[in-house]
Amino acid sequence: MKKFEETTIDTEQIFNGHIIQVQVDTVKLPNDKISTREMVKHPGAVAIIPITNDGKILFVEQYRKPLEKSIVEIPAGKLEKGEEPIQTAVRELEEETGYTTATESLKFVDSFYTSPGFADEKMYIYLTTDIEKLDIEVEGDEDEFVELLELTLDEAFMYMKEERIHDAKTNYALMYVKAQGLM
Amino acid sequence: MKKFEETTIDTEQIFNGHIIQVQVDTVKLPNDKISTREMVKHPGAVAIIPITNDGKILFVEQYRKPLEKSIVEIPAGKLEKGEEPIQTAVRELEEETGYTTATESLKFVDSFYTSPGFADEKMYIYLTTDIEKLDIEVEGDEDEFVELLELTLDEAFMYMKEERIHDAKTNYALMYVKAQGLM
Repeated sequence: MKKFEETTIDTEQIFNGHIIQVQVDTVKLPNDKISTREMVKHPGAVAIIPITNDGKILFVEQYRKPLEKSIVEIPAGKLEKGEEPIQTAVRELEEETGYTTATESLKFVDSFYTSPGFADEKMYIYLTTDIEKLDIEVEGDEDEFVELLELTLDEAFMYMKEERIHDAKTNYALMYVKAQGLM
Repeated sequence: MKKFEETTIDTEQIFNGHIIQVQVDTVKLPNDKISTREMVKHPGAVAIIPITNDGKILFVEQYRKPLEKSIVEIPAGKLEKGEEPIQTAVRELEEETGYTTATESLKFVDSFYTSPGFADEKMYIYLTTDIEKLDIEVEGDEDEFVELLELTLDEAFMYMKEERIHDAKTNYALMYVKAQGLM
């Protein structure tokens, strides 16, 4: 849909980082007035809801520099160039948790834009109930430090209440599992 | 929690916009290695789930320049300086939908970071089942064009499937309403 479309008149590149790009577009509004839009370009990301045989969900705790604290999240990571979301799902699950899953076992749950007002980051969410511990450690990003947690759904909702779980994809995932009556 | 804390060695200001600021921090990792973190600072935002007497939810459709398309979302907006989230909730509901609600009628649902990997944006979500149409139009941002929609929960889930509803806060809100059995 293009309702209320804003036509680009000019694009100013502000920042070309390793992960994000920032640009300011000058746009013509539906009433022909001129405005600017500050935007972050992001490669997109994939998150996985991994459910164990004994009814727990795998999470990882990691430090999030923008928040200056560590929070507990479902495993997730950025799409690499040329990668399909389902491949990212398997890779990030392996790197962050030491578990793996078959692509056939990954059920697509949903996708959404995390913050459409200023960013184009799209998040894909998958769920798997068929995970297996890897014998050998899979190396992930060298600047990522994560700790694995296994929580029941009740424990996870308690973490959410305490704001130790406190991000869009994880809160969504818990609400999804509850709404579907999966656990 | 400060697990795996990353200590800031240097901060480079990249962009100071009207809505976002961008900075790159040089950090010392838990293993004493050095890395950089690209980060977006955002004032935070508030979204409202407004439920009508006849069992519908109010949404707004608007053009999202970062996505180059319009999507359907629950009413929402940025926190203004010095504003409490609950005030933002009432203001944005009035500006975007032409309905109002009493602050006492707003139930706090949840808060979460929309994209903790690169941004500090925090989203607060409220729900109200006590809304009233305003007699006069409340002026909102002059560069915002929105169209009001009223949808049943089933219709909203259909929009979600069709990806006309396709953002974190709105998908979360629908899953919340379903999980709680509110409609």
